Amino acid sequence: MTSRTPQQATTDDWAALAGIRPLHARVAEYLRRGLRRGVYPLNRPLPPSRVLSEQLGVSRTTVQAALQTLLDEQLIVSRPRSGMYPVVMQVAEEPSVTPVDWNQLFYKVATPVPQIVEPDHSRYPFPFLSGQIEQAAFPTRSWLKAVNQAMSGKNLRVSLGDPRDGDDPELVKALIEEVLALRGVHAGPDEVMITVGTQQGLSLLSRALLGPGVRVAMENPGYVDAQHAFAGAGAQIQYMTVDEFGASPQGTVDAHVVYLTPSSHHPTSVALSPERRRRFLALADGQDAVIIEDDYDAEIRLQGPPLAPMKSVDRSGRVVYLGTFSKYLAPGLRMGYVVAAPELIAQLRRFRHYATKAPSPMLQRSLALFIRSGDYARQLRGYRVRARSKFDHFAEAVGEYLPGFADQLTVPQMNMWLRMPGGGDAGEWARRARSRGVLATPGSLYYAPGNVVRTDELRVGLASIPEMRIAAGVRALGTSL
Amino acid sequence: MTSRTPQQATTDDWAALAGIRPLHARVAEYLRRGLRRGVYPLNRPLPPSRVLSEQLGVSRTTVQAALQTLLDEQLIVSRPRSGMYPVVMQVAEEPSVTPVDWNQLFYKVATPVPQIVEPDHSRYPFPFLSGQIEQAAFPTRSWLKAVNQAMSGKNLRVSLGDPRDGDDPELVKALIEEVLALRGVHAGPDEVMITVGTQQGLSLLSRALLGPGVRVAMENPGYVDAQHAFAGAGAQIQYMTVDEFGASPQGTVDAHVVYLTPSSHHPTSVALSPERRRRFLALADGQDAVIIEDDYDAEIRLQGPPLAPMKSVDRSGRVVYLGTFSKYLAPGLRMGYVVAAPELIAQLRRFRHYATKAPSPMLQRSLALFIRSGDYARQLRGYRVRARSKFDHFAEAVGEYLPGFADQLTVPQMNMWLRMPGGGDAGEWARRARSRGVLATPGSLYYAPGNVVRTDELRVGLASIPEMRIAAGVRALGTSL
Repeated sequence: MTSRTPQQATTDDWAALAGIRPLHARVAEYLRRGLRRGVYPLNRPLPPSRVLSEQLGVSRTTVQAALQTLLDEQLIVSRPRSGMYPVVMQVAEEPSVTPVDWNQLFYKVATPVPQIVEPDHSRYPFPFLSGQIEQAAFPTRSWLKAVNQAMSGKNLRVSLGDPRDGDDPELVKALIEEVLALRGVHAGPDEVMITVGTQQGLSLLSRALLGPGVRVAMENPGYVDAQHAFAGAGAQIQYMTVDEFGASPQGTVDAHVVYLTPSSHHPTSVALSPERRRRFLALADGQDAVIIEDDYDAEIRLQGPPLAPMKSVDRSGRVVYLGTFSKYLAPGLRMGYVVAAPELIAQLRRFRHYATKAPSPMLQRSLALFIRSGDYARQLRGYRVRARSKFDHFAEAVGEYLPGFADQLTVPQMNMWLRMPGGGDAGEWARRARSRGVLATPGSLYYAPGNVVRTDELRVGLASIPEMRIAAGVRALGTSL
Repeated sequence: MTSRTPQQATTDDWAALAGIRPLHARVAEYLRRGLRRGVYPLNRPLPPSRVLSEQLGVSRTTVQAALQTLLDEQLIVSRPRSGMYPVVMQVAEEPSVTPVDWNQLFYKVATPVPQIVEPDHSRYPFPFLSGQIEQAAFPTRSWLKAVNQAMSGKNLRVSLGDPRDGDDPELVKALIEEVLALRGVHAGPDEVMITVGTQQGLSLLSRALLGPGVRVAMENPGYVDAQHAFAGAGAQIQYMTVDEFGASPQGTVDAHVVYLTPSSHHPTSVALSPERRRRFLALADGQDAVIIEDDYDAEIRLQGPPLAPMKSVDRSGRVVYLGTFSKYLAPGLRMGYVVAAPELIAQLRRFRHYATKAPSPMLQRSLALFIRSGDYARQLRGYRVRARSKFDHFAEAVGEYLPGFADQLTVPQMNMWLRMPGGGDAGEWARRARSRGVLATPGSLYYAPGNVVRTDELRVGLASIPEMRIAAGVRALGTSL
């Protein structure tokens, strides 16, 4: 029996499938398409593998692997002493097509808030960016040990299971006892929810607490992705100015929710003063408002006097505390958490269930075991030492190559907010620096649209740049000024 | 110098901290609280470690570890030849507290749709549930190999990095070539988005396409968590009845979005007929509607004739295809994907960025390597063989212990929808069965509130029960009837 395949059509098909790998998958898809179009009559066997092998210029083993796939898929059957036969395949006819105007179909469009898009930092020798990490510093061995443990013994059932609404109790416990307690934040298991990063915390809080007509106060400049979450919920954003004491509470807490980054203001790294903290707490109390305390940088403060999180003195439960494993550890984990009053946590869990269900139990259990092993704390101490050393290198280089900025480095930090002495256009500066391999972020990007107060600020982060490149990077920054 | 610590207060504190582990963390927190309350005067050294060690009944090494932590935190300083001194700590005063009425503060409450809450299946000998997996069948070794690879060499940078809007191109490619192509779904990289499970796909689609006043049609009985996502967006849900050909398109596609489970209807496992598929595609085309095809069960069909997904014949781009790695592989991964027109994918990415950013790059790269290793396909073949064998065991046991139901098992499947011959209350049946260690789900739970059409249906799933327990489970089901 010979093949009845129309040669022309199938050659085109074969060529069109060139992108499919591995080869046997390509052969399988080639045959599948033929079957779907009725190229192979139902009452006749398919061409033998020898013929297909010649036709397509692939080995018989490859053809046989493809045929096995089709057998597994029950697209063909094998009849003893006769060959492979097509099975009747049910498929809808292709309907006529009306062109789709997607803008017509969208209910909501994304918010008009601009987005900070940073280039791939690994391609630049001097990435002075925040939000990334130096990959060489990641505790790979300890982490893999924890992952392996999470996939064995009695951990396996948890790691593989359907999380539904629940978080891994082991992670919640480890977080409470070995991370939060050390910051003076004391919480019960019903006051903690694990998230797919801080962004999910902000998104779920926006859904639970905000909506059209509701006011939220936030810092300006501030965290752009928080602004997106609030605007996406339709809330009305009030901007608070930021000075050397952090966000100013003047007349701004006529809001349902106040979003703050008290430990280290994003993006300027200023710490919210004790006096201001007190004011915000009292204002929230008086106006029945919620404070979101985004403590993204908790692990990374390099010098005292340390500030206890606002959550640690929150008796009312009005303070919602957001933490993350993205800054220390890695953004690639996508793990964060919310600490809040049990009523709010219960509400957030309901919204989370229909947004994503709980974050991967496999990652949750791995992280729990990693923290419990002691490696989390141990590595963190090392991280702080390296971070401090990076800052010192940076400060020294600034003294040499950017002397006009040296007096701005009074507090050792991983992110610096540099103001050009005597003013200037930091956007231009950043562009020139990029052509010299330096990535730094113009401060104007962090201001709300229409609310850019200054354009002479540059944000410089030390998290992702290796220490040995800091001096050369600062020199290139200086040359670009 | 002796300690000035008021003995009574500190003993209480120490006892109250009993939950904190390890011990040195407890000592550190004890000292931290004392510092915060001003127990240790600023101009005097802290009690020496020997004294603290006796006071608290812990070793001096433990006290020294705690003091080191406080030094790291800059809560204390060491003065040579004098001891450890408190650093002035800035902390907000505790404000007066107005009790919080959280219901007053919530903007949105969760939807009133009831939720299917299933008990922990691992505690029952006969878990006839869907949505879970049999953990012993998980390819642990292959998976860990992929995870290890993802954390080494040039993969590490991707695994640790900030995903921002992007998916791992390697996962998208592997998915297109080795998963989607085998189903006849052909897509470019701009037509694919990775999600934190199917639920995130549904949630983001709801945000992009639905809103108050917008109609969405879905099956009844149907997938309850999809109903939640739609209701959460404020959309108006139209319910389509389901018969032996799947969802009925009669007069129902006066909707902006039609949600279908065509390969295997959730929860009845009926396949949508080719005729109905054609009708839905034509209706969507004529009415400018979007079809969401939830192909949650694509990997697990056990017998032909196989049905090509509706997406495989979609020329208009109106079909949005949802896939998952939760059914085969594991729910604990929380990984799924959306295949749709590039315009819609771009829109969904915007919403995803502010919901969670991209799913964990660490998991994405691990999954990409797992698929590319060939183990995904290899394990899947084994999975199908085991699944088929489970069904055969089940069918045999039904013939013996539930003979009245035997003729309902015409198509081998992992989830069966059993109707009590002559009617009955399946809820009662399930309750009686549970007392005999059997978990099965009353069909009425899958109907929309106020739209329960029948109460004599029971859903029985084979995914999580070990094969050797199936016969005994069916016998217990029979005894409970």
